[in-house]
Amino acid sequence: MTKTVGVIGGGQLARMMIPAAINLGLTIRVLAENEGEPAALAVTSLGSHLDLDAVLRFAQTVDVVTFDHEHVPQPVLRELVARGVNVQPSPDALLFAQDKIAMRQRLAELGIPVPDWARVTSAAELADFLADHGGRGVLKTATGGYDGKGVRVVSDPSDAADWLESGEALLVEELVEFRRELAQLVARRPSGELVLWPVVESVQRDGVCAEVIAPAPRSAGKLADVAADIATNVAESLGVTGVLAVELFETTDDRLLVNELAMRPHNTGHWSIDGSTTSQFEQHLRAVLDLPLGATGCRDEWSVMVNVLGGPTTGTIDDRYDAAFADQPTVKFHFYDKTPRPGRKVGHVTAGGEDLDEVVYRARAASAFFDS
Amino acid sequence: MTKTVGVIGGGQLARMMIPAAINLGLTIRVLAENEGEPAALAVTSLGSHLDLDAVLRFAQTVDVVTFDHEHVPQPVLRELVARGVNVQPSPDALLFAQDKIAMRQRLAELGIPVPDWARVTSAAELADFLADHGGRGVLKTATGGYDGKGVRVVSDPSDAADWLESGEALLVEELVEFRRELAQLVARRPSGELVLWPVVESVQRDGVCAEVIAPAPRSAGKLADVAADIATNVAESLGVTGVLAVELFETTDDRLLVNELAMRPHNTGHWSIDGSTTSQFEQHLRAVLDLPLGATGCRDEWSVMVNVLGGPTTGTIDDRYDAAFADQPTVKFHFYDKTPRPGRKVGHVTAGGEDLDEVVYRARAASAFFDS
Repeated sequence: MTKTVGVIGGGQLARMMIPAAINLGLTIRVLAENEGEPAALAVTSLGSHLDLDAVLRFAQTVDVVTFDHEHVPQPVLRELVARGVNVQPSPDALLFAQDKIAMRQRLAELGIPVPDWARVTSAAELADFLADHGGRGVLKTATGGYDGKGVRVVSDPSDAADWLESGEALLVEELVEFRRELAQLVARRPSGELVLWPVVESVQRDGVCAEVIAPAPRSAGKLADVAADIATNVAESLGVTGVLAVELFETTDDRLLVNELAMRPHNTGHWSIDGSTTSQFEQHLRAVLDLPLGATGCRDEWSVMVNVLGGPTTGTIDDRYDAAFADQPTVKFHFYDKTPRPGRKVGHVTAGGEDLDEVVYRARAASAFFDS
Repeated sequence: MTKTVGVIGGGQLARMMIPAAINLGLTIRVLAENEGEPAALAVTSLGSHLDLDAVLRFAQTVDVVTFDHEHVPQPVLRELVARGVNVQPSPDALLFAQDKIAMRQRLAELGIPVPDWARVTSAAELADFLADHGGRGVLKTATGGYDGKGVRVVSDPSDAADWLESGEALLVEELVEFRRELAQLVARRPSGELVLWPVVESVQRDGVCAEVIAPAPRSAGKLADVAADIATNVAESLGVTGVLAVELFETTDDRLLVNELAMRPHNTGHWSIDGSTTSQFEQHLRAVLDLPLGATGCRDEWSVMVNVLGGPTTGTIDDRYDAAFADQPTVKFHFYDKTPRPGRKVGHVTAGGEDLDEVVYRARAASAFFDS
């Protein structure tokens, strides 16, 4: 009887949509590849997102199909749409979150500031680009990368011999001199309404998001306006629906350049569960159902999110609850029911308050209970 | 692998424990009587809470058994304990939430202030009590009442002829002259740690909680201290674990009297989902697992919760989302996936902010979209 959202993929992003769906009185169904994935509680079908029949069968049980990840192939997405399934975001939009070369081309056409880039298919093309950009660059596979995978800093074509051999086009970008990384999250409905959360600062470690500060320190005024304009332009020009995360470089010469796009709730928005009036997960559900969006103000002066990366190397995560909860009664803990493994995102914590240094301390202290 | 909480009963209280369990990385399993109950997403067994075998089978799959309601019979509870099941709160404590006469006797022994009361089994005993208390009284069935059911204001034994015929002992209480009703929620771990939320004001309509204001206006100082002392005394003396709600009368002569006890999350604590650092649902899970309790401070100066009672008489609840969400972007909506029916609790909304009148207005306005 209630509206049903179908999520393809059973990871932690699908998991964190479940509380939002429960609160709003919605039904949520998840298509996952395996049993025991983080969103297991809402899994109603097991099957691969690569399997058209499995995806079609799943889609017929829901009012709208959305995503935990960007890996559903375009032919599958387009077949869903051809059969009348409501897919949000649309395949036309999702393409730009799936294919980094298509994304760079489209953003460049739109005049949105991006790092210098080129599409390269040979060692010679790569060598040319490197020669023009101080001898170094960031090489990326066009598709399939995440959390630092599919990304490599290169100073010579031989550094990428394996990738070049595959014959697939690669994206090479200038090594941007940046002061810090920011992220601007936005949510947009099919009917056009768009809201923005404050721009946040994200601290990456080994290519993986480690910490997020919301709002980004020293971001009031011009910086926030430019980030908002860029994200609004991207969302509207690309026809994105649901949550869009625009990852940005703040360069040492005070420009903002678009680094990556994600068209789903994103690690840089996890703080919003505890720190914003409307979390990115609730907002994503509202948006893909074309329901009016919620307020995006901050509930605390500062929110700091720290990922739990890897997790304990001895015992289980919940062995650590006693010490962590006792030490940090004000911190909000989030775990994804994933088996600890080096570098794996198994949870996150969020602290909030008025004094940034103190909030950072509490969040880091809480997270540290789950290290090694 | 993660700790598993088992909840007996599949209503909205079990439903609202699910987001808390997901966030904390716990597993939650629910024993419900029927399919399609509010907590359906976590239901792993269908069966009656009156059926010892069903309850025992369920209990064997979890680390701790707790409750959505107080209706599990004492013999079932005691058999669970005899077989080594971890039951929180314990049968000894739960008794006082199940049997109002036992509760009144015990609180009187403890010297905790309660309305004048008597156990009556005949028209003559009832007539005596009424004669001594201005000719009127509140008559209650000892067990099974909720939301105004099992409660009747009487001025003559003939008003209760049907109940008296049953031969079961009844509780009669003086009709307290009260200024308002308050509720003091507390959470307590088996190992003793105890935390309190601020005392709240609850507005009842037709015997059902309609609105809650947190904290209770004009409650700073003595009033808050007395409410806290009473609830602490009840929790510790009765050995309550998990969340305990102590409903109180603030009398016109400035006393606080205990009205009812509930040993589970309670309607007067729903505001805490959005308005406190730790919600009553998260706290209940922490407490029954004997994990350190979370901070209970208010996230807003004022939180106002308004129940959605009955729900729309035409169409479905989610038909109203467009108008309600658009009008009240800052209000948090909660629906229980229950079919609308006059007087039924089908959801609630919570607003927060600095100006109480304005917060009350927003919460009522949001709720009103779901009326008639």
